[in-house]
Amino acid sequence: MKITSAEVIDLRVPTSDDMLGSDPFHKAPDYSSAVLHLETDGGLRGVAVVFTVGAGTDWICHGIRDLAQLVVGTSLEDFSAAPLKLYRRLIDHHQLRWLHDGVFRMACGAIINAMWDLWAKSENKPLWKLLVDLEPEFVVACIDWRHLQDALSPDEALAILKTAKAHKVTREQEMSVLGPKAYCTAGWLGLSDEAILETVRKLQETGFDAFKLKVGQDLERDVARLQFLRDALGPDQSLMVDANQYWGVDEAKEHIEHYEPFGLKWVEEPIARDDVLGYLELSETFKGASFKFACGEQAASPVIFKQLLKSGGIGYCQIDAVRVAGVNDVMAIILMAAKFGVPVCPHGGGIALCNMIQHYGMWDQIAVSGHSDTQLVEYIDFLQDSVEHPVRTKSGHYVTPVAPGWGLEFNADFLADHTFPSGKIWRERPENRCGVHFECDLG
Amino acid sequence: MKITSAEVIDLRVPTSDDMLGSDPFHKAPDYSSAVLHLETDGGLRGVAVVFTVGAGTDWICHGIRDLAQLVVGTSLEDFSAAPLKLYRRLIDHHQLRWLHDGVFRMACGAIINAMWDLWAKSENKPLWKLLVDLEPEFVVACIDWRHLQDALSPDEALAILKTAKAHKVTREQEMSVLGPKAYCTAGWLGLSDEAILETVRKLQETGFDAFKLKVGQDLERDVARLQFLRDALGPDQSLMVDANQYWGVDEAKEHIEHYEPFGLKWVEEPIARDDVLGYLELSETFKGASFKFACGEQAASPVIFKQLLKSGGIGYCQIDAVRVAGVNDVMAIILMAAKFGVPVCPHGGGIALCNMIQHYGMWDQIAVSGHSDTQLVEYIDFLQDSVEHPVRTKSGHYVTPVAPGWGLEFNADFLADHTFPSGKIWRERPENRCGVHFECDLG
Repeated sequence: MKITSAEVIDLRVPTSDDMLGSDPFHKAPDYSSAVLHLETDGGLRGVAVVFTVGAGTDWICHGIRDLAQLVVGTSLEDFSAAPLKLYRRLIDHHQLRWLHDGVFRMACGAIINAMWDLWAKSENKPLWKLLVDLEPEFVVACIDWRHLQDALSPDEALAILKTAKAHKVTREQEMSVLGPKAYCTAGWLGLSDEAILETVRKLQETGFDAFKLKVGQDLERDVARLQFLRDALGPDQSLMVDANQYWGVDEAKEHIEHYEPFGLKWVEEPIARDDVLGYLELSETFKGASFKFACGEQAASPVIFKQLLKSGGIGYCQIDAVRVAGVNDVMAIILMAAKFGVPVCPHGGGIALCNMIQHYGMWDQIAVSGHSDTQLVEYIDFLQDSVEHPVRTKSGHYVTPVAPGWGLEFNADFLADHTFPSGKIWRERPENRCGVHFECDLG
Repeated sequence: MKITSAEVIDLRVPTSDDMLGSDPFHKAPDYSSAVLHLETDGGLRGVAVVFTVGAGTDWICHGIRDLAQLVVGTSLEDFSAAPLKLYRRLIDHHQLRWLHDGVFRMACGAIINAMWDLWAKSENKPLWKLLVDLEPEFVVACIDWRHLQDALSPDEALAILKTAKAHKVTREQEMSVLGPKAYCTAGWLGLSDEAILETVRKLQETGFDAFKLKVGQDLERDVARLQFLRDALGPDQSLMVDANQYWGVDEAKEHIEHYEPFGLKWVEEPIARDDVLGYLELSETFKGASFKFACGEQAASPVIFKQLLKSGGIGYCQIDAVRVAGVNDVMAIILMAAKFGVPVCPHGGGIALCNMIQHYGMWDQIAVSGHSDTQLVEYIDFLQDSVEHPVRTKSGHYVTPVAPGWGLEFNADFLADHTFPSGKIWRERPENRCGVHFECDLG
């Protein structure tokens, strides 16, 4: 099956109107996606997205369009024979690699993920099932070990996968209806306590018992809200907080020490996304606390994950489905987390991120760490009407996905209306609420 | 003075024809720049460049064009009153910051550096002189301290600057003719020993006594070349090596232990650009060696520099003029290096990078660390005919620059001929030697 053409769509949703997704840095996000469609001569379409929060989606679209030239004309069979070949062709392109992580690695991820999508569709399997069925040796051969093997060697990775393989059939059966356990980020910064509680109560009725709250700007308000939510949840449900990198290391300590009474499960992104030594210092400072530190949604390279995991800087590993270079990078990170005993709790939300991370949760809990006692996969309860295969939850778990591939197909009307800047939603919007011109003071 | 318009040019030079600039990862670089011209109503033009190695320059151009919309219509006076305001407006843009470092931070740097260029030109000063004349309090107010102050507080920075201020007049006089001491990267991977020696001998005649060699792929060949060059240089001249991140941590140790006999000054980028713990491990392993580790040209954020400096992971701090967000970020890094006693040895080369880093060397050695015993500023002996104000060297030092601003003005013919893809050089070139289509196996 040959890739015959590529289409890249800049899709943006004006979520800032309702302050959904807001945090101290991302004050008024418009949840967006650079959407890649790889068309083939075999009647299948490979789909991938890169999530962004509005402005800048066009930067990623530009990059994906450039890279897509390298896969048009290639065959799916070449890819599936050795996925690392395409990975290296992109990530180690001798000129493009100068662009570093960020936009470049995310654009590479789009191409790689669309190819994995095609492969899964060609076998009529959901992506998690394709991954679960791979031989351990094949998984190890998908990974770029160059900068990782001081933390996890290929042989160690093989041993982890082989150990899990012994229980794979049972685990797959156990997870055939209910997938990974979920938690919900209900406490967006821009929402009132009442609005947050309404979401929490609605989700509790469906079986959720784990919730996350945004914090950062105002200590007194944060503590009051934590008290309010802990009282509402009772002592047994899980409560987490997320500061989205708003603090420096010392400031983080000052804030976090006031959080100790609330029995938190984790404190997420207290400091800069790449401050490995800072995470280590915080973990040592709060060694006796109920919580550990979590990070990863903006960790832009497997090398940052390697350090956070092997040093003990984080206690929860929050892989993102589209920040690093696709399935190949994420497999490496999940394997490293397994070696160091750090539960993988993927970052969800955005547009269709949840559709993707449920597959990683399945693979981790069936074929790698082989259990699901400690992992929580993020779930966000909005924008699910944008896709043909919305994620579903039941009893506080993801319902195991069955659509072939990632299940990332967007509804055609939704795509057309939200294409930036030509879609109807954006044509009617004032310029100061669009793209780079939509500015917010950091305050 | 108002910014009236912005022009962004994708400039690429087919340096790969001569294998200049080649290393194990960047096998055949075409030295390139995203060039920004900010036009004003005051008769001055602000110029900035972002260096790349060919493909992908268009990605950065796309980003700069997007961001430039935010400065067209603003005034130079608003910028020079408080440069941190523009820095925050770009780097902390509540939607764009999701793009992370890499392309995004480099594009922000272009805008910021072009504004500093304008400011220096409006005062008819070379950039280093503008920086040297700033009050310590003003410098401290240019820096985003959020994620840095656990390593260096604003008060500590102020103290460093005030201490240096006492000797500023003397230091400025001392450096009024001969600027920072230079070294040259002569040993590109793709060149023969003879070609390298020819460059070395030519430079030695002009007073150079410090040279760098690319290594990485082939231990035996590297050791032979090191022996060849050490013999040619004699025991007293400085010899450095650069592996451009080709190794993992363990592999680095295996290679580097064979380098110990050659009295190297530094080993540059042995491992991944963001592997702070890896640098720490290498520094401990080779504690007694003649060399220390150097890194920074691909360290994409001040937070990575913070960790490399405060942990002792590196012994030489290789700032790059265009990898981070411009003057504001670089000032922070140079101040952190001063606190931890790490010599600042900027990364040069490319197109016009040397034109920029000479100013940072001047500022560091006059107004921050206040000496020039240990710092070496990289010098590359090609592509200087592309600019109106080529850098000059004398007695192994940079000749102190006098042109206003960065002195980054390109010759008009050179610009026109090398504009990608419309310039004459590129129109005539086969597609498989251009941009994303120009691929090299990593081997």
